[in-house]
Amino acid sequence: MKVLIIGGAGMVGRNLAEALVASGRLGDRAVSEVTLFDVVPAATQGTDAVAVRVMTGDISDRATVDALVADRPEVIFHLAAIVSGEAEADFDKGYRINLDGTRHLFEAIRAEAGYHPRVVYTSSIAVFGAPFPEAIGDEFITAPMTSYGAQKMIGELLLNDYSRRGILDGVGIRLPTIVVRPGKPNKAASGFFSGIIREPLAGLEAVLPVDDDVRHWVASPASATGFLIHAATMDTGPLGARRCLTMPGLSVTVGEMIAALGEVAGEDKVALIKRQPDATIRGIVAGWPRNFDAARATGAGFVADASFQDIIRAHIRDMETAG
Amino acid sequence: MKVLIIGGAGMVGRNLAEALVASGRLGDRAVSEVTLFDVVPAATQGTDAVAVRVMTGDISDRATVDALVADRPEVIFHLAAIVSGEAEADFDKGYRINLDGTRHLFEAIRAEAGYHPRVVYTSSIAVFGAPFPEAIGDEFITAPMTSYGAQKMIGELLLNDYSRRGILDGVGIRLPTIVVRPGKPNKAASGFFSGIIREPLAGLEAVLPVDDDVRHWVASPASATGFLIHAATMDTGPLGARRCLTMPGLSVTVGEMIAALGEVAGEDKVALIKRQPDATIRGIVAGWPRNFDAARATGAGFVADASFQDIIRAHIRDMETAG
Ligand SMILES: NC(=O)c1ccc[n+]([C@@H]2O[C@H](COP(=O)([O-])OP(=O)(O)OC[C@H]3O[C@@H](n4cnc5c(N)ncnc54)[C@H](O)[C@@H]3O)[C@@H](O)[C@H]2O)c1
Ligand SMILES: NC(=O)c1ccc[n+]([C@@H]2O[C@H](COP(=O)([O-])OP(=O)(O)OC[C@H]3O[C@@H](n4cnc5c(N)ncnc54)[C@H](O)[C@@H]3O)[C@@H](O)[C@H]2O)c1
Repeated sequence: MKVLIIGGAGMVGRNLAEALVASGRLGDRAVSEVTLFDVVPAATQGTDAVAVRVMTGDISDRATVDALVADRPEVIFHLAAIVSGEAEADFDKGYRINLDGTRHLFEAIRAEAGYHPRVVYTSSIAVFGAPFPEAIGDEFITAPMTSYGAQKMIGELLLNDYSRRGILDGVGIRLPTIVVRPGKPNKAASGFFSGIIREPLAGLEAVLPVDDDVRHWVASPASATGFLIHAATMDTGPLGARRCLTMPGLSVTVGEMIAALGEVAGEDKVALIKRQPDATIRGIVAGWPRNFDAARATGAGFVADASFQDIIRAHIRDMETAG
Repeated sequence: MKVLIIGGAGMVGRNLAEALVASGRLGDRAVSEVTLFDVVPAATQGTDAVAVRVMTGDISDRATVDALVADRPEVIFHLAAIVSGEAEADFDKGYRINLDGTRHLFEAIRAEAGYHPRVVYTSSIAVFGAPFPEAIGDEFITAPMTSYGAQKMIGELLLNDYSRRGILDGVGIRLPTIVVRPGKPNKAASGFFSGIIREPLAGLEAVLPVDDDVRHWVASPASATGFLIHAATMDTGPLGARRCLTMPGLSVTVGEMIAALGEVAGEDKVALIKRQPDATIRGIVAGWPRNFDAARATGAGFVADASFQDIIRAHIRDMETAG
C-alpha cells in the first residue's frame, strides 16, 4: 500500500516515517511506498522493500495538493501545521496553512471520484479553553483560546463532516504535548517541558520558567507514532460521527518530571536545571489543560506511556541510537 | 449611526429592518442609514429620518464584501446563509456561502485599519448533535450532525477568534427555530412547525408529518428581532472569549402547539391539520434538540416569548397589519 505523510519532515512525521520504513507494515498490510511531503525535504531513507519519495511544496497551494492526492495513497497522515506560537504571531499564515491547507487536502480528496482514503489528522488539546475541570472528559466543550486552537478545531469539524458525507474516512487525534522533543530548543512556549530533560541529559544547562507544581498532559514521541498507526488501522465504525479523540497521556507536574530525571539519570543532571521564573510563559501555561480522562480513546485501543521514567529512558535510548 | 444587514431580504432580516426603520433607533443611538444587502433586493422602505439603501450581491465574492464594509457601518448583522436542507443538498454552495462568505466578511473588516464594528452573527442550535440531555446547557459539547451545523460552528469559532484578536466585537446568537414563519411554506424539514399554525389561520389545510409528542425549541419572529437588537447593543465585556450564546426559547410539543391554536383561534382551525406521518421527516426531526437551559443568554438579558399562545396571537396581529 501507498502512504502519504504531509508534514513528513517534522518531528512527529519523521518518527512515523522511520517506523513505517523499519517495519515495512501498517497494521496487517505491507507498505510499498511512503511519500514524505513538506516545505523542507525530509531526510528519511527508503529500503529495498519500502520506497521513500521525498517531495517539497506548500499545502496552502491547492494545485500542489491536487497533484499529491492524484497518486491515491490508501492512507494520508496530515501532520503539516504552523504551531501555536507562530499561528498567534502570524494571523494570515496560521489560517492559510492550518485552515486553508487542511481544506485543500479534503477538497482534493473529494475531487478524486471513487477515492475514499483513511485520513489521520493531528489535532491538539488546544481545542479546549479554560476554565477546566479536574480532568477534561470526552464530553467537555471545545472552546479554543488561541488562533491555533480555533484552526485545529475547524479542521476537526471539517474532518467530521467530510467523513459523515463519505468523502474520506477520518480520524482526528488530539495529541498531548510531545515530550521529550528531540533536537534543538524551539520557540514554543511549551519548549521547556522537553528542555528540562533533554538539555541536562546532553550535559547542558536548561532554563525552567515556571513553578514546580505546574501540571501538564504529555506523551512520548514513540506514543505519538503508536497513536498515528492505530488511528490509521483501527475500525472507525464505533466512532460514529465524532471522529476526533483526545489521546491518552500522562498528567505530570514539573516537580515529578524533575524527580524522574533524578531517579533515571542522577542528581547531577537535575543540578543543570536553572529556575528563572518568566511571567509571560507562566501566564500562557496557566491557561493550558492539565489533566484528561481520555476514556473514548482508551476504549478505542489507544495506549499511553506507562510512566514519565519510561519516557526519559526511551529518550536516552533514542539518543544513543542516533548518535 | 449606520447599520448594515447582510441577508436583509430574508425573513429575519426583513423584520429587523422594519423594526429599525420604525423606531429610528438602535439602543440609545439614532439610526441614520440602514443598508440591506442580499442576493435579492429587499423591499423595506426608508423614512425621512432613516435612509434605506438596498444593495444586491453575493457574499461569496470577496470584492463585493470589501466594498460593503468600506462604508464602515457601526453595526453589522450577518444573517445571510444557505439553510440546513440546501446546505446538505449542495455541499459546495453551503461551504461557499456559509463558510467562505462569513470569512470574507471578517477578513474585509480586518482589512479596514482602525475599524472595530459590532458584528451580530446568527448561529443555530444545529451546532449541537445527539445524544442530548434533558435540557442542553451552555457547557454542552458542540458536535454538529449536518454540514449547515458544521458551517455555523466554524463561523462561531472565527467570530470568537476575530473578537479575541480585537478585529471586531462579535456576538453570536444561536436562534431557536423561528415560528410562526410568515409567507409561503418552504422546503425546510422544520417547515411544518410553522405550517400547522400559519396555514389553518389562513383557512388552509396543513400537513403534520410527525407525532404529537415531538418536542422542539422555538421563538417568535418578534423575539428574533429582540435578540438581534439586544446583541447589537449589549455590553460584550462579560461574555469574555465565548461570544456565542444559545438564545432562550420555548420548549413545546406539537400537541401543545395544536392545543394553543385551538385555544386562541378555535377548534375549526385545528381541524385543518392533516396527520400524514412521513418517515424521512420523522427521522430528521428525531435528531434535533428539544430543550435548552439558556442560562448564559438569560443572564445576559436576552428574553424569550412568554407562551406559545402569545406567539400565535402575535402572528395573527402581524397578518392583520400586513394585509
Ligand atoms: N509536538 C507536539 O507537542 C504536538 C502537540 C499537539 C499537536 N501537534 C500537531 O502534530 C503535528 C506534528 O507536530 P510536530 O511536532 O511534528 O510539528 P513540526 O513543526 O515538527 O512539524 C510540522 C511540519 O509541517 C511542515 N509544514 C508547515 N507548513 C507546511 C506547509 N504549508 N506545507 C507543507 N508542510 C508544512 C513543517 O515544515 C514541519 O516539518 C502538527 O499538526 C502539530 O500541530 C503536535
Ligand atoms: N429562521 C430560523 O428558524 C433560523 C434558525 C436558526 C438560525 N437561523 C439563521 O438566521 C439567519 C436568518 O434566517 P432567515 O430565516 O431569515 O433565513 P432566510 O433564508 O429567510 O434569509 C437568509 C437570506 O440570506 C440571503 N442570502 C443567501 N445567500 C446569500 C449570499 N451569498 N449573499 C447575500 N445574501 C445571501 C438569502 O437571499 C436570504 O434572503 C440565517 O443565517 C439562518 O441560518 C434561522
